[in-house]
Amino acid sequence: MNRCFVDPIVSGGLVGGDESSKLPVGPLNILGENRTFCPILATFYFSNFQKHDMSTAKTAITPTRAEDYPEWYQQVIKGADLAENSAVRGCMVIKPWGYSLWENMQKALDRMFKDTGHQNAYFPLFIPMSFLEKEAQHVEGFAKECAVVTHHRLEPDGKGGLRPAGPLEEPLIVRPTSETIIGATYAKWVQSYRDLPILINQWANVVRWEMRTRLFLRTAEFLWQEGHTVHATADEAMEETRKMLDVYTDFAENFMAMPVIRGEKTPGERFPGAVTTLSIEAMMQDRKALQAGTSHFLGQNFSKAQEIKFQSQAGQIEYAWTTSWGVSTRLIGALIMTHSDDDGLVLPPRLAPTQVVLMPIYRDEQQKADVMAYCESLCKQLQAQRAFDEPLRVEIDRRELRGGEKKWYHVKRGVPIRVEVGPKDMANQAAFVARRDTGESRSMPIAMLVESIGEQLKSIQDHLFAKALAMREANTVELANEKEFRAYFQPDDEQGRSVGGGFAKCWFSSEQEVQGLLDELKVTIRCIPLDAAQGTGTCFVTGKPATTQAIFAKAY
Amino acid sequence: MNRCFVDPIVSGGLVGGDESSKLPVGPLNILGENRTFCPILATFYFSNFQKHDMSTAKTAITPTRAEDYPEWYQQVIKGADLAENSAVRGCMVIKPWGYSLWENMQKALDRMFKDTGHQNAYFPLFIPMSFLEKEAQHVEGFAKECAVVTHHRLEPDGKGGLRPAGPLEEPLIVRPTSETIIGATYAKWVQSYRDLPILINQWANVVRWEMRTRLFLRTAEFLWQEGHTVHATADEAMEETRKMLDVYTDFAENFMAMPVIRGEKTPGERFPGAVTTLSIEAMMQDRKALQAGTSHFLGQNFSKAQEIKFQSQAGQIEYAWTTSWGVSTRLIGALIMTHSDDDGLVLPPRLAPTQVVLMPIYRDEQQKADVMAYCESLCKQLQAQRAFDEPLRVEIDRRELRGGEKKWYHVKRGVPIRVEVGPKDMANQAAFVARRDTGESRSMPIAMLVESIGEQLKSIQDHLFAKALAMREANTVELANEKEFRAYFQPDDEQGRSVGGGFAKCWFSSEQEVQGLLDELKVTIRCIPLDAAQGTGTCFVTGKPATTQAIFAKAY
Repeated sequence: MNRCFVDPIVSGGLVGGDESSKLPVGPLNILGENRTFCPILATFYFSNFQKHDMSTAKTAITPTRAEDYPEWYQQVIKGADLAENSAVRGCMVIKPWGYSLWENMQKALDRMFKDTGHQNAYFPLFIPMSFLEKEAQHVEGFAKECAVVTHHRLEPDGKGGLRPAGPLEEPLIVRPTSETIIGATYAKWVQSYRDLPILINQWANVVRWEMRTRLFLRTAEFLWQEGHTVHATADEAMEETRKMLDVYTDFAENFMAMPVIRGEKTPGERFPGAVTTLSIEAMMQDRKALQAGTSHFLGQNFSKAQEIKFQSQAGQIEYAWTTSWGVSTRLIGALIMTHSDDDGLVLPPRLAPTQVVLMPIYRDEQQKADVMAYCESLCKQLQAQRAFDEPLRVEIDRRELRGGEKKWYHVKRGVPIRVEVGPKDMANQAAFVARRDTGESRSMPIAMLVESIGEQLKSIQDHLFAKALAMREANTVELANEKEFRAYFQPDDEQGRSVGGGFAKCWFSSEQEVQGLLDELKVTIRCIPLDAAQGTGTCFVTGKPATTQAIFAKAY
Repeated sequence: MNRCFVDPIVSGGLVGGDESSKLPVGPLNILGENRTFCPILATFYFSNFQKHDMSTAKTAITPTRAEDYPEWYQQVIKGADLAENSAVRGCMVIKPWGYSLWENMQKALDRMFKDTGHQNAYFPLFIPMSFLEKEAQHVEGFAKECAVVTHHRLEPDGKGGLRPAGPLEEPLIVRPTSETIIGATYAKWVQSYRDLPILINQWANVVRWEMRTRLFLRTAEFLWQEGHTVHATADEAMEETRKMLDVYTDFAENFMAMPVIRGEKTPGERFPGAVTTLSIEAMMQDRKALQAGTSHFLGQNFSKAQEIKFQSQAGQIEYAWTTSWGVSTRLIGALIMTHSDDDGLVLPPRLAPTQVVLMPIYRDEQQKADVMAYCESLCKQLQAQRAFDEPLRVEIDRRELRGGEKKWYHVKRGVPIRVEVGPKDMANQAAFVARRDTGESRSMPIAMLVESIGEQLKSIQDHLFAKALAMREANTVELANEKEFRAYFQPDDEQGRSVGGGFAKCWFSSEQEVQGLLDELKVTIRCIPLDAAQGTGTCFVTGKPATTQAIFAKAY
């Protein structure tokens, strides 16, 4: 495939590029053989979602977002080699590229947790059934989707196969979340106010027996972190709950480049057993909401169920106040649906396992030796640079593949910057640089590439955030009444695809009174934003006076 | 408690200290008030295991190793706050100090795996029962200790409680190890020789329903890593098996400071389903062996059971060759029993979560402000230093506790270097420095402390290794016949404690022919060392000619 490029001078360039740099403007320079300007490809490279739908350019992912969004999502995952379904119902295999993305997420979050005073620990995979029973709402929320261990060995079944044997006295539940088993442990650790606060996080796998699963978004087993803290006062626990929502917001916006709305869940949407549930909500490219992280103020509900008591400074025995908060591999699903395009995955540089890939191009062994040496040297120079205050993650793709194959391999995997180096580039002390987010590509002197690489990555990171924010703002409306609401949230089309919609800000007076309409339209209350409009309005369903404005949306 | 110290000039000092630096020699200088030389304490500080048993000094851990080794082990864990038993039978809670030790182990191992070309991925927690059945020896090895999931929800039992409901069509096994489920996935990934090798590692929890459990050493659930690789040829797979044994050896000796013997398991001790099992074996302070890591050449056993086939370069369809290798949180048990003493945990600096702890000492608020400022400055200077090519891990203990309490807290947790800073130290631009491994302590100018800290930590690391190696060498013998063997491996005493024994090198001709004696004495063949004596000998039981010399020992 021919390579297209844009003169940095007329296009605004790669360095510090802003929104406007997405589109080529003015005349285009043409450099070198095999590098001809190609208007169709330029449209392709620089198209955005909406434009692309109307074009007929071939895309790396079939179907496109516009054709079939849910299937596009599966194909992006397949094309990027992130994960696949396993032989075990609802459980996924997270493949190396997907897992290294998760490792980068873990690393960033773990640093944030430690910087806010938390330590990691590890608690049992199993929860005795009787522990779940202690908190009524909690068990109500999880009983219907539990993996239950009932036996502790296998024995021959007499027909050449095996059968479970050694029944347990009490069944064990594979943890769907660990409030109860961790709470039982904390009850032993907490005696006095001097033992508080307890600020602990756990990285673990959990199991919720979902009937309809989808890679990353909803799987029977998933990986997550769950923070569990204990405090002497309600205020301190509530402060922790808010602080961890801030940490999640920081992570979503500054690492994932995914803008989120911070808010409080309505009673009907709370975590089972929580007094207050806070969440961050993101808009996907099909305008549906995705809950990306939750932080719960549990009041004394779990400390009463688990007997977490302490002697206060005044000498009284009091129940402690607890919180829990978590994010999971679901964030990978959110990341995919926020940034990816019809050519596959687009990764924010801050989390990309490889930020820059070098692709040597050569025709024979002599060229190969020269180009490889040149690449090795360039790789070292780039690795000595920093981006986001960390060493750059650069790789050379040494595989013997055709150039086009290599290129599309990395496009589909979302590597932020691809650098092609051939004999001509070498002769010019240059390299051919392509940005995954905008599709811009150009020849660039090596010195400039090395010097600007950190800035280029930052520019991509910023651009992805700005684009996602613009998308959300363009698809957020205020709706005053049921008629507007019905027009905005049309039913899914005959293929089950979402039509229209987005985020709607509406006043309402009672969750119960709007629930019927929401169920009918498959819309949910996402949250009451922390920065929601103050004052009063009119309930969009009943017309009654209302003091609460919330975000309504269809959701994952 | 008074502080004792040794003149660096006469003792060999802390910097670059060698074996001889363990014992004070020559005259001792006495500096400052409250710092009197105390012969009893000196004996205490500088005693080794054997000496200590004869002394009457008070120890931080009760009982001592000599009094009751198994109970000492539990008390070291408790004193260091590493882990505890949970409410779930056989499952442990790994507490923050224990978990951060595991994190450091993971970090070092993960780096080594990646440096040898491996990537991480994640596979399901559950294994369908039918998968286990496919490899006959494998299921034989694990069927008796499986947690079996048979239901996927809970329902009211009509008596106010819950009962399992929603029976599964096929029971699921909580993975005891993942050869079968990973193999089933690899069968889909591998089509051609071009897809090989596959070099993947997984960090995960596994469950083996052990009837008798002990923290870290043997728990129903434990954390581990399991590498699973696929190769086109037997030679390549065998080379991988050996390479990973080398990685484990490097980790055990250079990070854990734990000398190991590398060897091959006899057929009776192999991993169920393996063709060859290699292991590293370490000697604990009670002279029992502990298998610290295993690397298995699986031949084509699992590829035949799981249908992992590929088209070779010659166009033939062939079964692939696989390996697996793993280490677990059991290593923490090995670490404890290799280095700890009667005052608690001793950590090798390379893995210690905190390498240096600063303990400010003051009497009033004015002193506190000055001392704290001095400590903060010292902390920054130390953090700017490096040890083992990494930034130093230094902490200030800011808690309001008596000096003695603080000191013993960190002694029991095994922090390699403790630094006390009081007003007098400040006035002298000095600090009082104590080494956990030897107990040596002395006043030292700040400049010298900062400059030498990396060397001091290295000296501790080296000393721990040398001490453990000396211990193993002093307790390894060659035995020629059954009489010597019986005398060496006396039965445990009436309290079930091991008496005498160690590692015995013996020639033998047949595993079957020695098994009766081994069972009687509770001795096992640990391994045939890779560097075992070549040539021939005489079987120590039958007197027959023998070509194999192995290490025999009682074992964990």
